Formats: sequence, structure tokens, C-alpha cells
Amino acid sequence: MSSSAENGRVDPADLTTFVAAVLDSLKVPGDDARTVAATMVDADLWGYETHGVFRLRQYVNRLRDGGTKAAAKPLVVAETAATAVIDGDNGLGHLAMHLATRTAISKAQTAGVGWVGVRGNNHAGPLALYVQPMADKGMAGLAAAVGSANHVPAFGGSELLLGTNPIAVAVPAAGRPPFLLDMATTVASAGKIKTLAQRGEAMPEGWMVGADGAPLTDPKRQSEGFLLPIGGPKGYGLALAIALLAGSMNGAATGKSVVDFTNDTAQSANTGQFVAALSLSAFGDAETILADAARLCAELEASATLPGHDAVRIPGAERAKLHGDRLANGLPLRSNLRRVLDDIAHERGISTLATA
Amino acid sequence: MSSSAENGRVDPADLTTFVAAVLDSLKVPGDDARTVAATMVDADLWGYETHGVFRLRQYVNRLRDGGTKAAAKPLVVAETAATAVIDGDNGLGHLAMHLATRTAISKAQTAGVGWVGVRGNNHAGPLALYVQPMADKGMAGLAAAVGSANHVPAFGGSELLLGTNPIAVAVPAAGRPPFLLDMATTVASAGKIKTLAQRGEAMPEGWMVGADGAPLTDPKRQSEGFLLPIGGPKGYGLALAIALLAGSMNGAATGKSVVDFTNDTAQSANTGQFVAALSLSAFGDAETILADAARLCAELEASATLPGHDAVRIPGAERAKLHGDRLANGLPLRSNLRRVLDDIAHERGISTLATA
Repeated sequence: MSSSAENGRVDPADLTTFVAAVLDSLKVPGDDARTVAATMVDADLWGYETHGVFRLRQYVNRLRDGGTKAAAKPLVVAETAATAVIDGDNGLGHLAMHLATRTAISKAQTAGVGWVGVRGNNHAGPLALYVQPMADKGMAGLAAAVGSANHVPAFGGSELLLGTNPIAVAVPAAGRPPFLLDMATTVASAGKIKTLAQRGEAMPEGWMVGADGAPLTDPKRQSEGFLLPIGGPKGYGLALAIALLAGSMNGAATGKSVVDFTNDTAQSANTGQFVAALSLSAFGDAETILADAARLCAELEASATLPGHDAVRIPGAERAKLHGDRLANGLPLRSNLRRVLDDIAHERGISTLATA
Repeated sequence: MSSSAENGRVDPADLTTFVAAVLDSLKVPGDDARTVAATMVDADLWGYETHGVFRLRQYVNRLRDGGTKAAAKPLVVAETAATAVIDGDNGLGHLAMHLATRTAISKAQTAGVGWVGVRGNNHAGPLALYVQPMADKGMAGLAAAVGSANHVPAFGGSELLLGTNPIAVAVPAAGRPPFLLDMATTVASAGKIKTLAQRGEAMPEGWMVGADGAPLTDPKRQSEGFLLPIGGPKGYGLALAIALLAGSMNGAATGKSVVDFTNDTAQSANTGQFVAALSLSAFGDAETILADAARLCAELEASATLPGHDAVRIPGAERAKLHGDRLANGLPLRSNLRRVLDDIAHERGISTLATA
């Protein structure tokens, strides 16, 4: 980590106000600007820095150039007892995803499960934020998304036709933070690589290969190579399953119809996602299920470790601690990102972010 | 491959009759014996040899010793508009899973999605067979299972507390076999390793490590080591997500309560699974979705390959060809498996399998 990597902490409320002001300057209606800004800061508070305020540059460019619609109204366009389809109206992706989460929870309350497809959307930050509300309500949550650019070829292929297509799962447990997994189906996410590029750090071998099949470790050369799926053909299979379930099923873009969200700032992305909620009480006594989930997590946490590992961790548990610290002590903001935010403030003619 | 690896082909109908006779000799009611036998042979016909007739030895031992109940009646024990819970009554797992598939499809027809949890069950062969019926009906299918023994530690752990916890996804596409993924969340499945042990072949490095963390390549030493999850912490996260969704949610066994299905032939396993179906027409025009899925698969298949790969493949497509060949020309039966089947015939006092 370089000496300029961190630059003090900022108050999450100040950062939210700043991001909302940026979005407001781009004609995003006040309530929507505030919702999206709060979601972006939430991503940082929970440790998803690659999918939080770091993405403001991309969002600004697309709002500025018309790729993303500022005054968008995501709507439920079809529904059954347990399903819905939401059209994001090409707005900031967080808006349609919040609606999808609320709709899935509401369906699950009456039908046991709610499955909501999303199309006509954009990048929405980390999927984790759209399954955590299920866990907060004592439900299980599941979500997946077609990545906002093609960084991945088929297994054995050399053309970029798939995204990092992430999946997220949340399951609540008694007396502890929920199990919360949010993972790209590639070894590394595009966001992590973008962050390394911004920090001037190298990628480990195994994250990417070049067109020659040799390891690629310079994150600034990301566009020349391919992200590697986890488990070779298995990760490819998962990425394609998600493309079909989150993309084709919802009428969203996949394969050659995917717009590169970063480099193409003027075209609609038609990003696809899905969000599902499962009511525990549809499957048994909710308290018993919560206790059993906690028992399993505790068994794993208490298990013996391999040399080089100090403890077994449950996905989500460390982030819950991080979130507490950042809420109490402020959000660390890297100097590189601070500079980007300052640039955006100047471009948009608004005040730069106050330092605590 | 050793020279004795293959021993001619058998007629699938003869093999089904033989397996049904074995199950019948163990007091499995006639219709159930026939259903399970046909499902097991179907697994071989589709190329899932590690999860087909090869498993008869395990099933026989557990039926003989009371671990699995012969005359079981899987039943729907709870349901909502879009969900159900099935208790497998500790029967052969295929029976409850067929019921789960039918129930999920029926729920999806009315509610858009059907999600069915299963508990009190046993090993059920490949999950693929329980999502393929969704694709055959023009629906998407999803299934997962808690593995029938703990072969996997947590990431960084050294105690076996998780199974290979597989997941399967089927999505139909216009004018071609469905996309059909069925994968363990480990680099290799326990079944594949058992097959190598039976064949006397070594495992590649990367499938397993020993308790010392060093690679383990002798499949006969499987019980001394750990299966490695795909993508390290990611595969661990997926395996745990499946343990929670297919296990804890349904009141099925996970972690320390999992019985080793192979070595413990007398205790109930309480295996958990889930099966879900999604109606395409709940999400849009079904023909449009089918055409888009086919378009994406075709783009991938037509894409340029890396050196060493002759073509990009869509999961499920090669198996559809294999299935056609095996239906037409018979099922190849390895001599090792043939010997096991002969042993079982002698033990059960029934005729050995006829050779074509």
C-alpha cells in the first residue's frame, strides 16, 4: 500500500450529501439522487469499495452523455402471485434494484417466495445491498446480475462475450450477522482490478490472462486480456447460467448486445438482474431455521484451521464489524478517489467534499 | 484407460430391469423400484456415470442395513402458493426429488415460480435429472443439494464440515438442447474420485489436499484428505450458501449432523435438497426468451477459441449427443462396475445382468 493510499476519514453523511449534489447537478430528481447517494455510501460502509462511491465517475459520465437517464421511473411491468418484472427505465440501477427488493419481499410474504426480474437497468452497485434487506426481515435472499461489460470469454474461447456476472445470497441466523455472500463468478471482479489500477498496484497471477493465454498482471492493461472464471468450465457455466436467468429471461442484454458501461457513455445498457426472497416460515418454524443456521456457522467458526489461517470466517461476519467501525469512526477515503471526486466537483460546478 | 476399462455395451432396458430387481429384492415396492432404476439408468444415459448405476452398491448397503427405508412415502408436508416442503420419509432420494420437480413445475404454472424444499431424504443421483423436466416443459429450473457426506472443510479450515454441495441450472433455448449445468462446488466431485478409485487411475493435482496441505493424488486415500472448493473462498461460500438454503431452510442435516452415506449404512441421512421452476411466460414472451437464449448460446459456440481448444461448448449440448448415441447403441459398462453388479446379484440371489 503506497503512503498516499489513505487520506483520513470522511463523515458518511457528508459524503452522501456530496454524491447527492453531484447527481442533482446532472438532473437526477432530489429523492432519487439522495437514495442512490445513500446506497453508494452504504456500499463503502459495508466494505464494497469497488462498487460504491468509486463508481461515481462512471455514473456521471453516462448521465452527462445520455447513456443513463436522469429522471427515470422504474416500474413493475408484469407480475404474477410470486413473480414480477421491473423495467428500470434506463435510470441509475440502484433505483430499480431497491424496487425489486421491496417487491420480492412483498411477494414472499404472501406466496412464500418472490422472484423479480429486472431489465432496462444500469449498474447498481453491490448485489449484497439488495439481499441484505431480506436477511434484516428474517428472509433468505438471492440475487444475480449480468455484468456491465464483457470481460470474460467462454471456457476455451477468446472472445469477450460474458460479464463477471455476480451472485449474492443472504441467509439470516440467530444472534449473529447474516450469512452474506456476494461474489463475481470470476477469480477477481472488474471492480477490484479497477481499484488496483487506481492505486497503482499489480494483480496477482491467476486473475487474468492475455490473448496469448499468458498471465496478465498490470491492471492498466485490463482491456487487453480476459478475466478467468472460478474453477474453469464451472465458473463459465455459472456465468452463462446467470446471463440466461438475469438477462435472457428478463429481456435484458447479454453477449454481443452488452454495452461496455465504462467506455460507452451514450448508449442504453439494458442491464439485467434478478432478486429473489424466500420466507423462512414457508419452509418451517422460522426460529428453528435461524437457530440451525447459527449452529452451522458456529461449527465452522470453531473448526480447526490449516497452517497460515488464524480462523475460519463466515461470509458477511467481517463486514458487519467493518460497518460498525466505519459508522462510528468515518469512512477511509483513498487520495486517488478523493482526487476523482474533486475533479467531478469542479466539472459539475459544486463544492468539493468537506474534510473532517 | 486400462484395457479392461470397457466391457461391451448393455441394453438400457435390461440394465433397468436388473436394477429394479435388485431394489425389489430389498423390499422397495415395485413401482418405486422401477422409477428409481429408470432414473439411475437415465443418469448413465446422460453421461452422469458417477451418479447413476455406479451408486447401486451404496443404495443396496443402506437398504439392507436400514439406513434407507425401502417402503417410503415422500409427501408434501407444507405448502404456500409458490412453495412446498417435501419430507422424503427416508426413502431412496430419487422418489422425493421427482415429487419435488413435479410440485415445483405445478406451482410455477400458477404462481410464476415454484420453490420446493426437501428434507428427510437420501442421495438422489445427479441434480440435472430434476431440472431437465423444467426445460422440457419450456421452464427454467434450479436445484441444489447438501452432499451425502462431508468431504470439504471451510476455507482455511481443516475439519470436514461441508459436502460437495452441487447446484444445477437448466434453461431451454429454441431449436437446440437446453443449457444444462450440474456442478459440484468443489474442483472435483466425490463421485468422480470414487470412479477413478474403481478404475485404478490417479487424480490430477488440484482436486484434493491432505491434512498437511500437500496435494493428494491417490483416489483410494480420499478419506484422508479434503476436496478443494472452486475459487477458494468463493467455492466455500457457495457450498455454505447451499448448505443453508437446501439444508437449514428445510430442516435437513448440515455440518456435524451429516451422516457419511457410504460408511454409515444404518442411520437416517436426513439429506436436504431444493428444486425451483420458473415459468418463462411470467417474465415475458416465452418464444422471445427461447430465441434469445439460443442466440446467446450460438454467439458463444461461434466464438474464436484459445490454442488447445477445438470449440466452445454450451453445458448440456455434448450430453444430448451422448444420450442419443447411448439410447441407439447401448450403454458402455466398465468391467469393474460389471463385477460389482454381479456381486450384488449373487448377494441378493437374483440373476446377473444379461450381456447383449
